[in-house]
Amino acid sequence: MKEKAIQDCYADQSAWCYGCGRLNEQGLHIKSYEDGDEMVCTFEPKPYHTAMPGYVYGGLIASLIDCHGNAAAAAALSRAQGRSPGSDPPVRTVTASLHVDYLLPTPIGVPLELRARITEIKGRKVVVAVDLKAGGKICARGELVGVQMPERLVKGL
Amino acid sequence: MKEKAIQDCYADQSAWCYGCGRLNEQGLHIKSYEDGDEMVCTFEPKPYHTAMPGYVYGGLIASLIDCHGNAAAAAALSRAQGRSPGSDPPVRTVTASLHVDYLLPTPIGVPLELRARITEIKGRKVVVAVDLKAGGKICARGELVGVQMPERLVKGL
Repeated sequence: MKEKAIQDCYADQSAWCYGCGRLNEQGLHIKSYEDGDEMVCTFEPKPYHTAMPGYVYGGLIASLIDCHGNAAAAAALSRAQGRSPGSDPPVRTVTASLHVDYLLPTPIGVPLELRARITEIKGRKVVVAVDLKAGGKICARGELVGVQMPERLVKGL
Repeated sequence: MKEKAIQDCYADQSAWCYGCGRLNEQGLHIKSYEDGDEMVCTFEPKPYHTAMPGYVYGGLIASLIDCHGNAAAAAALSRAQGRSPGSDPPVRTVTASLHVDYLLPTPIGVPLELRARITEIKGRKVVVAVDLKAGGKICARGELVGVQMPERLVKGL
């Protein structure tokens, strides 16, 4: 596993995401790390991130899958284009669509582990499958379609 | 349009949702109101709810569609079962799946309007279509599948 999170390679101008931007002080600071062919993220919800007492809010789960999926998409496109995630400007993607299946109630108070893998790359489009586990069980499964942002948006917004 | 939000009819025990629970002090307090055959929600993102400067975070959009869609699902099931949203215990649904298509970047700094309509009711399952508009344009479209919670979970968690 690499030490630097993909999100820490994003350019300052595009590091304000509420989900994963390192410069957004109020944000969630979701971090994604390469781990072989997968991308892994560990996240501990705050006690107030509840759907109902004891369980994690579904909108937070969608947010985790969104940012983690885009990190995996950006890293995959970087590789496909012979670039490193830290190249200038970094490759970034935006979400075209997001799908989440909530398979089990996700318990709160334990770390959540998300694993993302690429299922398709076609030009500027990437499809990513994401599993979310809590306590060893897959509680949610997501699919994200990400599209590479034009360089002018990544560089100066 | 009715004055009381659907979420304000939820039982205290299930009013802790980070998205729409009235008792969750740190939450988003998403509110949904019946408007004819539709359910409407207006929400103003905070300045820090950014994807990138100037635009709304996709995870927040997913959260809005999640809570608003469940409110519409709960109200529709209430009606289908000859109950009012304020009946005791109130009908509640959980999200089985959530899909969001991000059609346009959603500008931040203007109110977002979400409109939900029911596309299918089958037993305890409801399918809801949600449009999200900003500045008069549809920026995102969502589909939520909600399933009615067992009464014992609604009453005492």
